[in-house]
Amino acid sequence: MAALEKVEEHRSHSGVQGVYRHGSTSTGTEMTFSVFVPEHEEGAKLPVLWFLSGLTCTHANVTEKGEYRAACAEHGVIFVAPDTSPRGEDVPDDEAYDFGKGAGFYVDATEQPWAKHFRMRRYVEQELPAILAEHFPVDIDRQGITGHSMGGHGALTIGLRNPDRFRSVSAFSPIVSPLNCPWGEKALGGYLGPDRDGWREYDACALIEDGSRLEHLLVDQGTGDDFLESQLKTHLLAEACEKAGMPVEIRMQPGYDHSYYFISSFMAEHVGWHAERLKD
Amino acid sequence: MAALEKVEEHRSHSGVQGVYRHGSTSTGTEMTFSVFVPEHEEGAKLPVLWFLSGLTCTHANVTEKGEYRAACAEHGVIFVAPDTSPRGEDVPDDEAYDFGKGAGFYVDATEQPWAKHFRMRRYVEQELPAILAEHFPVDIDRQGITGHSMGGHGALTIGLRNPDRFRSVSAFSPIVSPLNCPWGEKALGGYLGPDRDGWREYDACALIEDGSRLEHLLVDQGTGDDFLESQLKTHLLAEACEKAGMPVEIRMQPGYDHSYYFISSFMAEHVGWHAERLKD
Repeated sequence: MAALEKVEEHRSHSGVQGVYRHGSTSTGTEMTFSVFVPEHEEGAKLPVLWFLSGLTCTHANVTEKGEYRAACAEHGVIFVAPDTSPRGEDVPDDEAYDFGKGAGFYVDATEQPWAKHFRMRRYVEQELPAILAEHFPVDIDRQGITGHSMGGHGALTIGLRNPDRFRSVSAFSPIVSPLNCPWGEKALGGYLGPDRDGWREYDACALIEDGSRLEHLLVDQGTGDDFLESQLKTHLLAEACEKAGMPVEIRMQPGYDHSYYFISSFMAEHVGWHAERLKD
Repeated sequence: MAALEKVEEHRSHSGVQGVYRHGSTSTGTEMTFSVFVPEHEEGAKLPVLWFLSGLTCTHANVTEKGEYRAACAEHGVIFVAPDTSPRGEDVPDDEAYDFGKGAGFYVDATEQPWAKHFRMRRYVEQELPAILAEHFPVDIDRQGITGHSMGGHGALTIGLRNPDRFRSVSAFSPIVSPLNCPWGEKALGGYLGPDRDGWREYDACALIEDGSRLEHLLVDQGTGDDFLESQLKTHLLAEACEKAGMPVEIRMQPGYDHSYYFISSFMAEHVGWHAERLKD
């Protein structure tokens, strides 16, 4: 059994909000994540909703500001928030906020010096689910995934690559096509090298173009988001889905920005939407 | 009209979460506070709920972690969160977390060097309400007040001294009797001097003993709160209310600690409880 260190636990909304740390075989570092387990019957296994965070964030941002616990308690859903990159003195970094620590982009890096530690794809897709199944009352057959901005990109791409694992995928203000925005070009170029064909498995629009499909996809995007035109480009996702004949619900939310004030406004709806699709 | 500087505004839960700054005549410093205004009909005046924060906090803690906006939007209640002390280089401070900046205890200090700036009673009782009435769609005849820990002490004492102004008073893990706990003895001794008779108007239990009454009082207190026995002493409030024949609902919440994970668990209930008493 993989060892798990309890960093903190708090009773909240009749359940337990915890923060945990473990040595990761994927990243070769310690990794910290948070889990909310709602009140449940002894022995019950609950569906789980993953939340992948955006640039500069750790598990803490959504844990403190996400306003998900009331809805998770109501619907009996476990909520998991991983970190956005490996951390530690041995881990290479970049001075910019959008590359290196806090900006793992949920890829397995192939370029040096990133390849050794920046293996967030493997961490989120394989290692952390196994740890969850070992230590928490998770029904691993009922998983949904969501995320914000870079984490919305993570949720979309991980969901699209693993449609059998995730019954439901949603996102808040996601980067929908790293191939077509400055954040994406910098990060995927840095982590994966100049061959843009290799980036396609990390680009939601390209994955859809190449044949990946989701049954259930919900996206909320604020119209007052400063990154909408330059980085997020929601319309590219709408176009890719339309071209592929893939159903998607994209809601342009008037006046909302890129902050947790936006995320928290629609979090309860997302939790309910996932819960509906993760029943039994 | 007193000038008000907008620090930030975000659309949230269909309303507007703002942070504002102004020059305070009470404290002689700039003061920052947050206000959430829910969606409302043009020209409508809404009831207002005050939240006074605890030691070390600013307006930001409850604004980010309090989970009040959904309930305030549902009930049409404005939510105001002041700072806990004056700030700035000219303001005297103490090295400890429980005295000086971040620890104003909602008193008007009489002792030096505190008396010049530490006038949080006047600020919260008189100056900020007038600013709110000028700049926000507040129905000043419908006010409720709540708070946490030191801010619970603030809510109780300000409420008890102004029963005509606040129709409803509640608190999360309040310091119920500064006369009888180390935090209170240090702060009131420091700000008000050694004459303990002068502390009584800043002590909820003493105010009740001296004849102040509230019509509606709700208190939530976690049983897993590390400060319960040494500082908060909820039983003293229960005893004072019983002796005075004053109705109070004190709920001991099993397993909850002193954190915002506790506050946010019961915030929606408090907002709804106040809203019920602030109708029309």
